[in-house]
Amino acid sequence: MVDFTDSLLPGPGSDGAEILKRERGQSTIRVKELSKHLFSHNGFLERQQRVLSIIEAEPLCSKTNQMNLSRPDRFHLGLARAKLTKRLSDKHGWDLEDNKMAEYLIDEMLPYHLHPNLFLTTMREQGSEEQKAYWLPRIEKYEIIGAYAQVHKTELGHGSNVRGLELEAKWDPRASEFVLHSPTLTASKWWNGALGRTANHAIVVAQLLLPQEGSTTTYSSYGPHPFVVQVRDMKTHLPLPGIVVGDIGAKFGYACMDNGYMLFDHFRIPHSAFLSRYSKVDPSTGAFSQPENSTVVYGTMTFVRSNIAMHARLILARAVTVAVRYTSIRRQFRDRDVDQNIGQEIPVLDYPTVQIRILPLLATTFALHYGAKAMGELYFRTREQVNVGDFAALADLHSTSSGLKSLCTGLAADGIETCRRALGGHGYGGGSGLVQLSHDYLAKPTVEGDNWMITQQVAAYLIKKMASAVKLPDSAASDDTDANLKAFIKARENPRTTVEYLDILNDDYAIVLAFRTRAASLVRTSWHHLVMN
Amino acid sequence: MVDFTDSLLPGPGSDGAEILKRERGQSTIRVKELSKHLFSHNGFLERQQRVLSIIEAEPLCSKTNQMNLSRPDRFHLGLARAKLTKRLSDKHGWDLEDNKMAEYLIDEMLPYHLHPNLFLTTMREQGSEEQKAYWLPRIEKYEIIGAYAQVHKTELGHGSNVRGLELEAKWDPRASEFVLHSPTLTASKWWNGALGRTANHAIVVAQLLLPQEGSTTTYSSYGPHPFVVQVRDMKTHLPLPGIVVGDIGAKFGYACMDNGYMLFDHFRIPHSAFLSRYSKVDPSTGAFSQPENSTVVYGTMTFVRSNIAMHARLILARAVTVAVRYTSIRRQFRDRDVDQNIGQEIPVLDYPTVQIRILPLLATTFALHYGAKAMGELYFRTREQVNVGDFAALADLHSTSSGLKSLCTGLAADGIETCRRALGGHGYGGGSGLVQLSHDYLAKPTVEGDNWMITQQVAAYLIKKMASAVKLPDSAASDDTDANLKAFIKARENPRTTVEYLDILNDDYAIVLAFRTRAASLVRTSWHHLVMN
Repeated sequence: MVDFTDSLLPGPGSDGAEILKRERGQSTIRVKELSKHLFSHNGFLERQQRVLSIIEAEPLCSKTNQMNLSRPDRFHLGLARAKLTKRLSDKHGWDLEDNKMAEYLIDEMLPYHLHPNLFLTTMREQGSEEQKAYWLPRIEKYEIIGAYAQVHKTELGHGSNVRGLELEAKWDPRASEFVLHSPTLTASKWWNGALGRTANHAIVVAQLLLPQEGSTTTYSSYGPHPFVVQVRDMKTHLPLPGIVVGDIGAKFGYACMDNGYMLFDHFRIPHSAFLSRYSKVDPSTGAFSQPENSTVVYGTMTFVRSNIAMHARLILARAVTVAVRYTSIRRQFRDRDVDQNIGQEIPVLDYPTVQIRILPLLATTFALHYGAKAMGELYFRTREQVNVGDFAALADLHSTSSGLKSLCTGLAADGIETCRRALGGHGYGGGSGLVQLSHDYLAKPTVEGDNWMITQQVAAYLIKKMASAVKLPDSAASDDTDANLKAFIKARENPRTTVEYLDILNDDYAIVLAFRTRAASLVRTSWHHLVMN
Repeated sequence: MVDFTDSLLPGPGSDGAEILKRERGQSTIRVKELSKHLFSHNGFLERQQRVLSIIEAEPLCSKTNQMNLSRPDRFHLGLARAKLTKRLSDKHGWDLEDNKMAEYLIDEMLPYHLHPNLFLTTMREQGSEEQKAYWLPRIEKYEIIGAYAQVHKTELGHGSNVRGLELEAKWDPRASEFVLHSPTLTASKWWNGALGRTANHAIVVAQLLLPQEGSTTTYSSYGPHPFVVQVRDMKTHLPLPGIVVGDIGAKFGYACMDNGYMLFDHFRIPHSAFLSRYSKVDPSTGAFSQPENSTVVYGTMTFVRSNIAMHARLILARAVTVAVRYTSIRRQFRDRDVDQNIGQEIPVLDYPTVQIRILPLLATTFALHYGAKAMGELYFRTREQVNVGDFAALADLHSTSSGLKSLCTGLAADGIETCRRALGGHGYGGGSGLVQLSHDYLAKPTVEGDNWMITQQVAAYLIKKMASAVKLPDSAASDDTDANLKAFIKARENPRTTVEYLDILNDDYAIVLAFRTRAASLVRTSWHHLVMN
């Protein structure tokens, strides 16, 4: 529709592109070098440019109308984008990182998201060699589409405490099968991404029940274990008999993800469905065996938490970028001491009340970046050790990923909202680019281990570490945390060395050491209180 | 669809209704008396019961599917509900308070919301007697539907600073008409509720330009003024020639409100469009006259801010109610010191990490209630004084409503999110009842005067008051704020009286006095810093 507004321009001094160009011209920061410094890892920048040029040519990836769609249409758009990504991936020979980049650029969690991530990873990490040989090719070729009934938030009635899961997997020795059964409504699997409409297979966690020796009616519980289960017919896509499955409905965000629920009515699965890299059920005797180090079943969760912690910087960077650009362009009021009819109004970013909100978040983005880098290094180093049978550092990885997951998601989630409000009224509008970012990201503080709960686990872990460090301060440190606590204890015996060394005004590294000392000191204080009470 | 899940029950000890009944049975609070104490004002409880019985029988008011709808369908549902409310209002002879209750119970801001509120109020407060005689009957009968191009957040390029508005209203003495014109894109009216699709009339704020004496080409600006303007054809509902108007698109929330934009191309309106209760333009000479007390044009804004401040308690009460109920039912983990296989898990509300989040917000809800009550009393008392020509207390009302708007909306907006996260994963689900509450309410910290901006105005006002109180501490107090500041100054001269009086451990009223003293002390400190620098 053509009308007189087509020829209108922004008011004097309100041309955003012009203002940003001028602002950038005033900066001495070498932007290209900074980009390379931040994103050189793993060919990020080259990959982003290459995948972006393909993605942005696809009309399906246009965001223009997506906020106006109904929930079913929004899901269909997401599914179409997921399929498109798969086709583009085949066509251009994308690897896993390319695929992740595509999803990142399409800018939403697509219904296929969990398939190459959690579903594949869990199979790779928890499946036996035979299971991997059978399933991995099918998963990698997308012959099947998998959902992951994640350990946390997995049933309607139970979340963080996996021991409380109600779904039963009873071993039937005569048929050599497990029988999955949901005895109550609260046993419904809940939240499982891609299960609502997309997936035909799922990894399902259930309480393992084995007959007591010599009995066919009395069972003992062996805790939660993962099973791989076909959920829907491969031709009709209808749920298999004995399974009730569907979409859990509207959520705070994630409009195109079909989070699902599922219940089983005495549904039989073969012995081979039990993921048995670590724990095993002997098919002939029904005897249970488990690995010496039981923390390995947390492998997937640690992977997810590490990823969430590493992802936070990208989210906060976007929110801060929007806020800095907008508040540079937006002007409001003139200086109180000048003639109110002369000259331009002041850019909002020049007001201290805006600066004290936005600039610390800009700094936080960089802190999250380097935190993510350290998290990634710790994760891959520990994985390598685990792969050669050394589980010593796993507890520390678990604690670090939990602590960082909580810290980073809290900072990013609250940071988005701070940025959004700093945009004033326009932060509430769809044009801000912060609406979906906020609605989607606000899942993070409670998902995959509620932030308040996992920080308590971290605290318990640290206090335990401190107790043992106090007992044997001179024993070899098992990991970075241990080393820091022990160094602190030894420094306390001669406090002057510590205090004099930390010249934080002139030595950046001294700031790091100061934070280390502070962290150890807080742990010691908490431990001391507990011991005294 | 019938399946085996129909006969399933919640797991043992997980029946929500039963748990809540038991919990309530343990309380000694007399709930009915408390309800009466909180909500006896203006027949609230009787009204709620009466209107609810009508609303809940209407299928259009069912929320079952509304989160799944597309934006256009969501708007149509809202419009249908607005029309239904009007029909029910006519049928049952509802008064204004009944209508407000209906909208509150339908639980969203309907497209007609601004019509009986801001549109009507502005006409009543800013219209001349002739204008009111002409327009009010038409507004009250819904013969026309009005939008309000509110003073704040009114143009794409300008918000809080109304002086920066770009829309021009030029007086044409020969035609005796005003010419509305948007010279730039940034002059677009923006955000105006109900303007996107619903309204055929609007109150529009524009810069008043009058020809300089003896000239027909040079104009002087007389600042922003409100005009009543027909926007769309009464039969075809198409925009009138010279007007471009439409919906601004998706937002963070308010899915069924058609916030709009509007531009004018030399659009002519009659002299009678100028709302002229206070300011006037002489139609024969083009001479401008304005009232002695110019703060009266803030009347509508003060009304809106007071209402927002008074509304916050109801919002936070809902979020806290959801959180308290859910965390009473939800159980997670057994006590660490008992056998992990015996007995029930602990209700989440019994954990200190949940209590420290939820219980202070429960208390805050009551604080907001009494704050709202005081705000309402101040508002109506001051309105009565203004109606008899006494403007003395208006500045204090403006400051109080601004300060409370900022405080109450901040507490409620952040409180919703705290409650939502305390629900863990289920807080993110549509079943929590907090999704739309959050998405809608998060407009409040920035709308109708950004919280950060208006608190600075409050600070400036208080410092000015302190300066004059220091100068003349014994002069008669003009309002409560003034009285408190002066009392503080006088008490400082004899500090012992103050300190001894405040026995906050044994005397509840002493807490109020302590807060008063603290408030005055903070103002004095700020004033002192300014004077010293």
